[in-house]
Amino acid sequence: MGSIGHVTPQKLSFDAPLPLKSGATLANYELVYETYGTLNAARSNAVLVCHALNASHHVAGTYAGQDKSEGWWDNLVGPGKPLDTRHFFVIGVNNPGSCFGSTGPGQVNPATGRPWGADFPVVTVEDWVDAQARLLDALGIQRLAAVIGGSLGGMQALSWTLRHGERVAECIAVATAPNLSAQNIAFNEVARRAIITDPDFHGGHFYAHGVVPRRGLRVARMIGHITYLSDDSMEQKFGRALRDAELGYSTQEIEFQIESYLRYQGDKFSEYFDANTYLLITRALDYFDPAREFGGDLSAAFAGARDHRFTVVSFSTDWRFSPARSREIVKALVDNRIAVTYAAIDAPHGHDAFLLDDPRYHGLLRATFERIAGEVQA
Amino acid sequence: MGSIGHVTPQKLSFDAPLPLKSGATLANYELVYETYGTLNAARSNAVLVCHALNASHHVAGTYAGQDKSEGWWDNLVGPGKPLDTRHFFVIGVNNPGSCFGSTGPGQVNPATGRPWGADFPVVTVEDWVDAQARLLDALGIQRLAAVIGGSLGGMQALSWTLRHGERVAECIAVATAPNLSAQNIAFNEVARRAIITDPDFHGGHFYAHGVVPRRGLRVARMIGHITYLSDDSMEQKFGRALRDAELGYSTQEIEFQIESYLRYQGDKFSEYFDANTYLLITRALDYFDPAREFGGDLSAAFAGARDHRFTVVSFSTDWRFSPARSREIVKALVDNRIAVTYAAIDAPHGHDAFLLDDPRYHGLLRATFERIAGEVQA
Repeated sequence: MGSIGHVTPQKLSFDAPLPLKSGATLANYELVYETYGTLNAARSNAVLVCHALNASHHVAGTYAGQDKSEGWWDNLVGPGKPLDTRHFFVIGVNNPGSCFGSTGPGQVNPATGRPWGADFPVVTVEDWVDAQARLLDALGIQRLAAVIGGSLGGMQALSWTLRHGERVAECIAVATAPNLSAQNIAFNEVARRAIITDPDFHGGHFYAHGVVPRRGLRVARMIGHITYLSDDSMEQKFGRALRDAELGYSTQEIEFQIESYLRYQGDKFSEYFDANTYLLITRALDYFDPAREFGGDLSAAFAGARDHRFTVVSFSTDWRFSPARSREIVKALVDNRIAVTYAAIDAPHGHDAFLLDDPRYHGLLRATFERIAGEVQA
Repeated sequence: MGSIGHVTPQKLSFDAPLPLKSGATLANYELVYETYGTLNAARSNAVLVCHALNASHHVAGTYAGQDKSEGWWDNLVGPGKPLDTRHFFVIGVNNPGSCFGSTGPGQVNPATGRPWGADFPVVTVEDWVDAQARLLDALGIQRLAAVIGGSLGGMQALSWTLRHGERVAECIAVATAPNLSAQNIAFNEVARRAIITDPDFHGGHFYAHGVVPRRGLRVARMIGHITYLSDDSMEQKFGRALRDAELGYSTQEIEFQIESYLRYQGDKFSEYFDANTYLLITRALDYFDPAREFGGDLSAAFAGARDHRFTVVSFSTDWRFSPARSREIVKALVDNRIAVTYAAIDAPHGHDAFLLDDPRYHGLLRATFERIAGEVQA
């Protein structure tokens, strides 16, 4: 089982305006992407990997000269890995609105000559899927062997079957949900308020002030991080362990190791993530709700997805998108007699489990992709 | 079942310094308290009610001329109510460090002539219980018929049996835990970071600047509020309901009713609650851990509590202090063959259930206090 080795991101410019769900339009946008493996002659072995909140097109491999630059799903994608690049042509693409290279709020708005900031149009899961479809056009790929994603990426994978169903054979949706619960939205909203009320946010136009709303980003990330980990794994990893040997009796200094860990995560995040991107991506999460156009009937939403095969994976301790949310998706598929494999993985790691290499989880994905590889080559 | 009617808070000054767990000392402190009902001739019918994070001595009744000024546990305490003031002399006391009248960080530090601010000493559950014991001394009450509290108040009730066991007959601990989990501490820490990194916090000495760290307090309260409600009750109350008829596609404006609700809760809280008090009280929560001195052995911690009777109550959907945390307390008591009644109430309201009047919950407390009333009069 080898590594992909060094990879190089590529960039494509799109001149045709992208109509957005909000009614606005994104013109002249660029998409950054990476590919791994080789597209076969029939152009039938492409697998699209959709990224979640703070990830990017850099799914696997490393960048030359950069230590610790492994892609975010490097344990899944590579030669001999579950998503085997000896058989598949794997595509990672950075979504518009992000801060990792594709057109986003930190880049210059051609209409004004200044960074987009808060004026960047609101983007949705559906808009991202449409942008991804155009990238496939440019790459000469008519139909995906599979689309896969975890969390917000899983929402994109689901959306592919609903918006461009004729262009995807298989959908693998991991640790995701058919929409956000009130509690999910609530956590997003607190994170957004922390960012927006940071005096350095300047209404989303902080670039012009030479500052970054670091305080808000730190708090947002800390909140997010709590929801990514399970109560149990946090307890096992940190428990009530103190940083120092004795209590210091302070309200402002670090006492417990969990505090130290969270502050570190927040600090690190605030150094590289764009505040407007955080708002945009949490909003895309809030808005995703394919059942909405069908009066809340998720089964009706999936009625047209009959030509696909689905794999749905949940993790027992994921309290952000609990197994019950995956079962809602499975039920909607079963209601439509659509082929679906549902794996409820018993794993202690909470939502973050989708990024880890639990053997049962990866075993399932390996078997799934081996089957797909057989179908592609048949 | 009647209301207590109008009540008036009282205040007592204490000249003997209060030694604190941190090693510091609190001198010349005042305690604000309220009492309901009449102390009997034997002085044996007193029940102490301990308050949680954002509550106070004002447990029941109303203030003359103030609409909607019902005490925070008014549904529990009054003539004919479960904690019946026709039989009991009920005491509510505001803990030091609070912002509702007892000596706290917003008040003037006699040593400097300026508000204490961040210099207010760190107070613990044990310190509060010691201060409460001195109030009983002043009121001429040697022994409590019972001590009761929910959440952080429940920790105080437990601590009473460990610190002043000879002065309390019965402990009623509702929706509480023997210590905070890593996740509990994590949520507290995020809230504290939001406050401390608010530029208007000024290191805890914002009073001198004529400002209040309102942004941080709002975020802190929003986070807290999410943890007080169950996922289910939030879903039933708000779900994905929009504030307006149509989506507005905005990252900064309110789209969902849950956002509107949380912002309102945050705004309201930031208008009356002191930022330093928030830090102090969340720290008191973090620090509470009676098993710590016994190498983490909670049963050993309760070994001396044999002369009490305990009632422990948990709520099925409370994910802040889950039923499993109550069962840890019950196990420690049972290990010591201490009399304990444990009620696991199936209620949809999450942690906040302890403030509501679920009939099974109130029925249990009514029966418990009726039994105690019989014993007091015997």
